[in-house]
Amino acid sequence: MGTNMPLDWSAVSHVTKVDPAEDLPADLGILGGTDLVIVGGSDGVTQENSLDVIRRIKSRFPDLPVFQEPYSSSHVSTETVEAADYLSVPAVYNGDQQNFVSKHLEFFTEIGNKPEEIVGSSLPVVGGLIASRGRDAIAELSEKVVGEGYVIQNLGSKAAGVSGVEREFTTEEVAGAALATESFYGFPIFYVEYSGTYGGPADVEAAAQYLDDTVLLYGGGIERNEQTHEILDAGADAVVVGDCFHDEPEQFRETLP
Amino acid sequence: MGTNMPLDWSAVSHVTKVDPAEDLPADLGILGGTDLVIVGGSDGVTQENSLDVIRRIKSRFPDLPVFQEPYSSSHVSTETVEAADYLSVPAVYNGDQQNFVSKHLEFFTEIGNKPEEIVGSSLPVVGGLIASRGRDAIAELSEKVVGEGYVIQNLGSKAAGVSGVEREFTTEEVAGAALATESFYGFPIFYVEYSGTYGGPADVEAAAQYLDDTVLLYGGGIERNEQTHEILDAGADAVVVGDCFHDEPEQFRETLP
Repeated sequence: MGTNMPLDWSAVSHVTKVDPAEDLPADLGILGGTDLVIVGGSDGVTQENSLDVIRRIKSRFPDLPVFQEPYSSSHVSTETVEAADYLSVPAVYNGDQQNFVSKHLEFFTEIGNKPEEIVGSSLPVVGGLIASRGRDAIAELSEKVVGEGYVIQNLGSKAAGVSGVEREFTTEEVAGAALATESFYGFPIFYVEYSGTYGGPADVEAAAQYLDDTVLLYGGGIERNEQTHEILDAGADAVVVGDCFHDEPEQFRETLP
Repeated sequence: MGTNMPLDWSAVSHVTKVDPAEDLPADLGILGGTDLVIVGGSDGVTQENSLDVIRRIKSRFPDLPVFQEPYSSSHVSTETVEAADYLSVPAVYNGDQQNFVSKHLEFFTEIGNKPEEIVGSSLPVVGGLIASRGRDAIAELSEKVVGEGYVIQNLGSKAAGVSGVEREFTTEEVAGAALATESFYGFPIFYVEYSGTYGGPADVEAAAQYLDDTVLLYGGGIERNEQTHEILDAGADAVVVGDCFHDEPEQFRETLP
């Protein structure tokens, strides 16, 4: 496991996914035990609430790596790009064409080609960055973008809905998608997302056997320390814990390795 | 420009695409001036004719790098993988979902997961390799696979037909696809394919501005030395010359830089 990102993944085994559309816990101090934060949700996310959450976390924990993971470019602004360390962009293998390729091409086409026209458009990041700092900004933004090869394994989740997922993958297909990520698509992260339900270690085990240069994340339904260890033992680099961070701070603490 | 492949792209400015379904010229010696060969076509390609062509080229020019570029896994066998230096696999940005993601996932799922069951199936490479040499063969095959981010710019071509292309990209979209290749999808090659028609330098110029780590190839309608130079001057790493290799050896010579 290792990527071109200047980020020490060997120090990351617990990731917290913070939904900017939900209330933060009264005491952000519980983030002291996590190794990385991903800011993103599947409903009600805006530029403003994303920026607010990124800044609040960074002001309390300046050294904690923070990814912004938008599902639409409308969540991204010059300020969010500058406030977060990385912009992680899912490519959903079992999603529709829009969510594996089309929206990424639109995103990069807008970034690259029509800077003046898109000031104030659906991609404010681009207009702002490019108007102020020109072509270097394209390179800077590009360097912050981290592709995530995603498989969403809970058809009933909002994540599946916004990504056009109509079918969960078999364990064999998850392994194939992992091998494709490692060998063909160059995403530095492979992400198995059970979104709200605990999927157990089978997909992680199947994926891990093919991932050397790719980071393996698992998210979904982690609420107990034994689950964290089951997933890490199966070969994930880190578990991603979301829901209970917002709702059950004590439970959240139990998910720490 | 540079990739993880142990291949010196700085020495490659002229690539010959050899269609295994067409007759080879009487004298293969005209390949002495080219820097790399891609074996592949869009119609009538088989394992057998692919292997025959790869072997004939390798026996005459042992040091000339040879890629096999299948459009179906049925073109690939244990022997073709061993005979060619790389297996280059197009991912067609303006193709259908099957030609950007689905068939690759199927390919890697078959490779990874059901070695015994697929002996003799549509993926003979897998059965043969894995039956004889086990899991190392998966790693070996994976290392030989080279992803190519493709844009096919001739709707009337067979290449467009077999890839489900229904729309040519604008120059701005070509640039966006190049930026996406460089920054998001990790394909080591970006390929602008005009397949049988000369497209001029505009797409190449637009793409080249965003490609540092990605090799830029242009193919389509190159028949004269001036065209080769126009494309190279626009920023392509190499031109790919196909049709006239089979039909007009003298014209082929004129395309050399």
